[in-house]
Amino acid sequence: MRAAVMTAPGEVRVEDRPEPKIIEPTDAIVRLAATCICGSDLWPYRGIEKIDGPRPMGHEYAGIVEAVGADVRTVRPGQFVVGSFFASDNTCEICRAGYQSSCVRRESAAPGGAQAERMRVPLADGTLVATPDLPGDDLIPSLLAVSDVLGTGWFAAVAAQAGPGKTVAVVGDGAVGLLGVLAARQLGAERIIAMSRHETRQKLALDYGATDIVTERGDDGVARIKDLTDGLGAHSVIEAVGTQESMMQAIRSTRPGGHVGYVGVTHDVVLPGMDLFFSHVHLHGGPAPVRRFLPDLIDLVWNRRIDPGKVFDLALPLAQAADGYTAMDERRAIKVLLHP
Amino acid sequence: MRAAVMTAPGEVRVEDRPEPKIIEPTDAIVRLAATCICGSDLWPYRGIEKIDGPRPMGHEYAGIVEAVGADVRTVRPGQFVVGSFFASDNTCEICRAGYQSSCVRRESAAPGGAQAERMRVPLADGTLVATPDLPGDDLIPSLLAVSDVLGTGWFAAVAAQAGPGKTVAVVGDGAVGLLGVLAARQLGAERIIAMSRHETRQKLALDYGATDIVTERGDDGVARIKDLTDGLGAHSVIEAVGTQESMMQAIRSTRPGGHVGYVGVTHDVVLPGMDLFFSHVHLHGGPAPVRRFLPDLIDLVWNRRIDPGKVFDLALPLAQAADGYTAMDERRAIKVLLHP
Repeated sequence: MRAAVMTAPGEVRVEDRPEPKIIEPTDAIVRLAATCICGSDLWPYRGIEKIDGPRPMGHEYAGIVEAVGADVRTVRPGQFVVGSFFASDNTCEICRAGYQSSCVRRESAAPGGAQAERMRVPLADGTLVATPDLPGDDLIPSLLAVSDVLGTGWFAAVAAQAGPGKTVAVVGDGAVGLLGVLAARQLGAERIIAMSRHETRQKLALDYGATDIVTERGDDGVARIKDLTDGLGAHSVIEAVGTQESMMQAIRSTRPGGHVGYVGVTHDVVLPGMDLFFSHVHLHGGPAPVRRFLPDLIDLVWNRRIDPGKVFDLALPLAQAADGYTAMDERRAIKVLLHP
Repeated sequence: MRAAVMTAPGEVRVEDRPEPKIIEPTDAIVRLAATCICGSDLWPYRGIEKIDGPRPMGHEYAGIVEAVGADVRTVRPGQFVVGSFFASDNTCEICRAGYQSSCVRRESAAPGGAQAERMRVPLADGTLVATPDLPGDDLIPSLLAVSDVLGTGWFAAVAAQAGPGKTVAVVGDGAVGLLGVLAARQLGAERIIAMSRHETRQKLALDYGATDIVTERGDDGVARIKDLTDGLGAHSVIEAVGTQESMMQAIRSTRPGGHVGYVGVTHDVVLPGMDLFFSHVHLHGGPAPVRRFLPDLIDLVWNRRIDPGKVFDLALPLAQAADGYTAMDERRAIKVLLHP
């Protein structure tokens, strides 16, 4: 089958790889209806994260089950499924507490190689959720988005305790930040401030429910958020970038007692203890436990209450994955969908 | 009047200082029934925090109101009061959200110089709470403890979400950590693991409701907490030290999705972003908003439901403040009460 592989920073090629097979009796094989490129795929692409040898890429997926292992009970061949980007048994104490991305069986079980025609998903019962029926093509981008980018934006909004009466600021106008706006709106936030200086992204943010746009960054961005919130800062801040500047911008934009939900992978970030101490914020985040939210998010998409698939502003055949990486790296595309 | 002043690291002397006066119409003058030395007073004493000129010391206080400014409505001369170590108006939006130690009027209004015969308390209406009547001498140590050390341990336990069904670990066996144990017990925690290698402190921890004692620190301490919690870590961890080692020990002792409540002043601490990201913990802390808890804690003390005053294992006349600092610095005393 064909699959995208990163061989070095800036080098992605689509090549023949062995067909995935059932290895464990808890595995499923999924034929991908669509897959996509994640902002986090850009870390190794940009050489910020080290690659040890050729790496099959992709961890966002939706598609049809082709085969299941002998122990799989909750999904069956022919069903359309969406899965989380971390495999989880969904039965351990950590999963039951809603932190499936830290499942005790997580280490050996990260689904990978989703930028491909087919993939193996471990712990299928705990990782996959089937849709009520086979979806129409128009629903597929949104269902794919649930797998990571919406699930991650949603977790950030929940971690930031976005909700009724709250002013929410969103640091980061990538797909996760934009879907953080959508999540904050769905969770009932009163006011949503999107921080963005890109017109197309501002437009999508407003579409998704942002009430204000702030174009400033760093100190100026913090000052602007304070201006908009009686000098206090936002109740809830979503951090969806993962750099030192964005983390500090998020913390400093939050009022004392407020909540920062951070989902940008914090490469090379160090938080100064005294700043954090006197900020009085709540800080929570990490790899989103998407599995916690899958049933509800699939339901919202299925009933056309939300349209997270709009973050895909470029769709390419899998064969052109390299062009997709370039477009995202150069910020010409918000998020690239790949047709296997 | 007599007051303790720190002139340089390791140098505390009791000298004559001007009597405090009403400056703002919202001030009160309090004659101290008792005062004490805080763990945080040891930071400048040990030269870790810089002192710019002679510093009147002390921020924990309980005593009799002697005078109030023209605008003070809720306390009157003759009442016994306990106050928080940060002055707050208790009416701003931040105060109403329970973060009085970040009151918008905080900057200009930190009560100081409590290791003295009398002190000025700004924003008296928002800062002080009167007891139902004049207390007996036996209650005074516990009422004094409410002012900071109990309030801080309590906030740490609340920030760590200690409660029914929870396993709580406490990093730090100083007075704050020990009262964190008491708070966790009062909040209904199922299991409380105190980390201490000092026999007298272990004994007090057990007295206050600890169910387990762990003597190991650092990696070994974390491993021991994991052993005691099915390999998962504690649900709630109280951090009451403020060093790099103690913060990392607290974070690493917490299960994914669990809560770290940190109140040790984080001098020279930097938190590595990736460790925090993948720890999946909730992190919350900072200067305790003691005012939020004052009415309830005074009530618990008044009705002899709790006895936080037991952390004072040495009582000295104010004139011997220097000996008190030495005893705490050398860990010969857990916490020193001073009689003005």
